[in-house]
Amino acid sequence: MSDVLLFDYWRSSASYRVRIALNLKGIAYHAVPTDLLAREQKAPDYVARNPQGLVPMLHIDGLDLTQSLAIIDYLDMTRPDPRLIPTDPAARAATLARAMIIIADIHPLNNLRMLHYLKNEMGHDQAAIDTWYRHWIAEGFAALEKLAPETGLFGGDTPDLVDLCLVPQVANARRFELDMAPYPRLTRIDGELQALPAFAAAHPEQVKPA
Amino acid sequence: MSDVLLFDYWRSSASYRVRIALNLKGIAYHAVPTDLLAREQKAPDYVARNPQGLVPMLHIDGLDLTQSLAIIDYLDMTRPDPRLIPTDPAARAATLARAMIIIADIHPLNNLRMLHYLKNEMGHDQAAIDTWYRHWIAEGFAALEKLAPETGLFGGDTPDLVDLCLVPQVANARRFELDMAPYPRLTRIDGELQALPAFAAAHPEQVKPA
Repeated sequence: MSDVLLFDYWRSSASYRVRIALNLKGIAYHAVPTDLLAREQKAPDYVARNPQGLVPMLHIDGLDLTQSLAIIDYLDMTRPDPRLIPTDPAARAATLARAMIIIADIHPLNNLRMLHYLKNEMGHDQAAIDTWYRHWIAEGFAALEKLAPETGLFGGDTPDLVDLCLVPQVANARRFELDMAPYPRLTRIDGELQALPAFAAAHPEQVKPA
Repeated sequence: MSDVLLFDYWRSSASYRVRIALNLKGIAYHAVPTDLLAREQKAPDYVARNPQGLVPMLHIDGLDLTQSLAIIDYLDMTRPDPRLIPTDPAARAATLARAMIIIADIHPLNNLRMLHYLKNEMGHDQAAIDTWYRHWIAEGFAALEKLAPETGLFGGDTPDLVDLCLVPQVANARRFELDMAPYPRLTRIDGELQALPAFAAAHPEQVKPA
């Protein structure tokens, strides 16, 4: 039995990134589904291990790792095949900067705690929330489209950290009916990535509890 | 004359982080003040170099680097003294995860583009925006306080990436009158850091255009 445990939620984008990374690196793990709607991420025994009370958390090598970027960087250092973040400083900076467009400047504005706050504390209806949601994806994707390669993946022949972040974010964009026409390169790359087994197996519908 | 150029805005937290990093590493640079209120970050010649149209951008080694985390990681790889992100995988994962609480889960929710959207597109008054602002800092700081050391800095005897992110975020918290009493460790660490010359010289009031 594997002693690698991934505390995740089927619809969490950050969890989805880590599932792809684990699959690409061939790391066997057991999923511990953590239902955000039931607030299982705020249970005392979970918060004792992860004070932020968010998913994902990866238990590996005796450590409890949090934050998808930190987890993927750790996996890349300890299990470097295949490499997801380049080691050359200039290439690494470019990859991290592109990934942060999604990790910092799109996703945190659109996750569940944010949507709940807009609804419950700010009193917005679903239409206003949907507009908000699409606005921040559109703004980030406009920049990312300009930085996307004309052929191949963000990582070239093989996926890198940006590719891992892209697929979950495009899935969210489609769920909220964002028009993807302005982003032909992102659409093409997303399509190529979704055909890869490591990405397909990580899809939310594949890991959704019955 | 130094050929290192930092495109920044005096009140930008992400720029403030990079100023501290440059000072700690003793890298001489020229600041290129980029007035966010005048939308200079959306000027065509700037956006051609940084499609996101955000600050900071660091021109160094012939590269245009964006996103504070990517910039600091690059500086750490190419100018490793003093080290700001540990190289040991477990320590590195812990540092990145703590930093991401601020970089991804507090700051993007509170930056200028967000505050403008809440006001202009969502129709909120300043009181609602202030409450929003404080809410996300309080949530992130509650987690970070539990992860903060009882003595010393996040980086131990010398500042690390978390310390670099903390000081600008505490400055924002104070500006929006967040009660810091629930965060005694963060308050203590912030005070110790502010006494360091590299931090003091990077303070917004020190770089504010006349």
